[in-house]
Amino acid sequence: MIDPVIIGTVALDSIETPFGKIQDALGGSACYASIAASFFSKPGILSIIGEDFPNKHIIFLNEKGVDTKGIILGDKTFKWSGFYEFDMNEAKTLRTELNSLESYKVEVPDDYKNAKYVFLANIDPELQLDVISNVNKPELVVMDTMNFWIDQKKEHLLKAIDKADILVLNDAEARQLFDTPNLVKAAKACLKMHTKAVIIKKGEHGALLFTDNQHFNAPGYPLEHIKDPTGCGDSFGGAITGYLAKTQDLSEANLRKAVVYGSVIASYNAEDFSIEKLKRIKQEDIENRYKEFKAIRQF
Amino acid sequence: MIDPVIIGTVALDSIETPFGKIQDALGGSACYASIAASFFSKPGILSIIGEDFPNKHIIFLNEKGVDTKGIILGDKTFKWSGFYEFDMNEAKTLRTELNSLESYKVEVPDDYKNAKYVFLANIDPELQLDVISNVNKPELVVMDTMNFWIDQKKEHLLKAIDKADILVLNDAEARQLFDTPNLVKAAKACLKMHTKAVIIKKGEHGALLFTDNQHFNAPGYPLEHIKDPTGCGDSFGGAITGYLAKTQDLSEANLRKAVVYGSVIASYNAEDFSIEKLKRIKQEDIENRYKEFKAIRQF
Repeated sequence: MIDPVIIGTVALDSIETPFGKIQDALGGSACYASIAASFFSKPGILSIIGEDFPNKHIIFLNEKGVDTKGIILGDKTFKWSGFYEFDMNEAKTLRTELNSLESYKVEVPDDYKNAKYVFLANIDPELQLDVISNVNKPELVVMDTMNFWIDQKKEHLLKAIDKADILVLNDAEARQLFDTPNLVKAAKACLKMHTKAVIIKKGEHGALLFTDNQHFNAPGYPLEHIKDPTGCGDSFGGAITGYLAKTQDLSEANLRKAVVYGSVIASYNAEDFSIEKLKRIKQEDIENRYKEFKAIRQF
Repeated sequence: MIDPVIIGTVALDSIETPFGKIQDALGGSACYASIAASFFSKPGILSIIGEDFPNKHIIFLNEKGVDTKGIILGDKTFKWSGFYEFDMNEAKTLRTELNSLESYKVEVPDDYKNAKYVFLANIDPELQLDVISNVNKPELVVMDTMNFWIDQKKEHLLKAIDKADILVLNDAEARQLFDTPNLVKAAKACLKMHTKAVIIKKGEHGALLFTDNQHFNAPGYPLEHIKDPTGCGDSFGGAITGYLAKTQDLSEANLRKAVVYGSVIASYNAEDFSIEKLKRIKQEDIENRYKEFKAIRQF
């Protein structure tokens, strides 16, 4: 059984950071998210690629237990190139080639339709809405987004948020979307919609989880060697959804655990380019770092 | 017995934030730090004021259990005026009048000389060094600083840091002083000096404690209503030192507790202008918020 279903981009990324560069490497929000989710459950991807997309990546995804039959074939694969400056906090885009993504229409395979968990990774909110209406009865819809959609398609974005159960976004996006510098106020504004939980990603500063009456503060992992933060937000959301799909427990206490597992996977992801580090880590590494997250916050 | 001894400024602050303004209100690093320390122990201040300094402030400090005989009298009190913009993250200085601070020479009263705990709050590092050489045998020297001294007196500052046991500074200062965007690297560079612990303040994102082999991540408190963050860093450092002076326990586990108590006091401080909130809170409020800090990080 495919769970969670993840829509997002599958991309070829070219990235330069102070620690190296890569050309046309595997990337995209659905890609990071599904690899992250695969540590906990059996995700399936909804996306589009082109004829230029190397087969080895599909084989790798399948080996990881990621179902790829929801990936359809267009002309050319979505490409993104960007760089990070010395502080590594913000990706600067050099070039975005939407390619096949421009004409992408969501097609949900039959055996994805009964998925109970859905992760709407970062992609056009109209496509996110299409997924919601094409999955029969999801128990939980988690969604991510980015500033581009707040700027360009705020109305569709708000519609999608209103149908999601958990919104994941970064601190700058939360401030922008809810028009307040105060993250507590932003989260409260969001919880007044139908959203049951808001998770605010703060990069090296960790993450915040807001539910109706509770607040959880997940620490950032003290990374000394960051190589490439691309995909950290996507793998964070993917891991959270994958962990929830595995544990089938939507209590606040279990959401907290999910956020920490998300942080664990995201912290590993930053340690190498593309999906290289996620390729190498084992279940044991995940449990070890989870314990470290406990240790650094004990008092 | 006076413990800790705290050097720093006693000031009259004029501040405007999106939530109001104050004129010539009680402020200054030694003032915030000593009030914060007074919740745990019996601090004494080393500083200078002028004839214009209202007596009521001295009376208030004494009522709080802060010893003021180390405050000497100059001509005019140090004055700072500044404002905060909507995001409240950074104080913008409008005007600094050093006044009597310009000619201030440290005079340590005899009964301060046997203090075991010293907090060098933010002030000229040459004055911080004078205090170190005039206290007989301190068991613990905690020091704070700010970007101005990194820019203007880096050599003296590094000398002072080399004589301190615990360095407290904010994230931007840590990056600047140790010339790296990575806080883990900055902390490690500092621990290579004689410093036994580095505490990095990250405002709303909490604080990090680095010791030789351990790392602790203290959460930020989810404040919905911030009025004025002035003095948060000073009260953080003061509370830490006061708590350590009270408990006489310099283990890493107790340092963690001290950092959380520092965060508790700093989070209260931001809720009103000047020292108004610290005036009102009781021991019970401190313990309640300490418990909240535990609750928001439980997983």
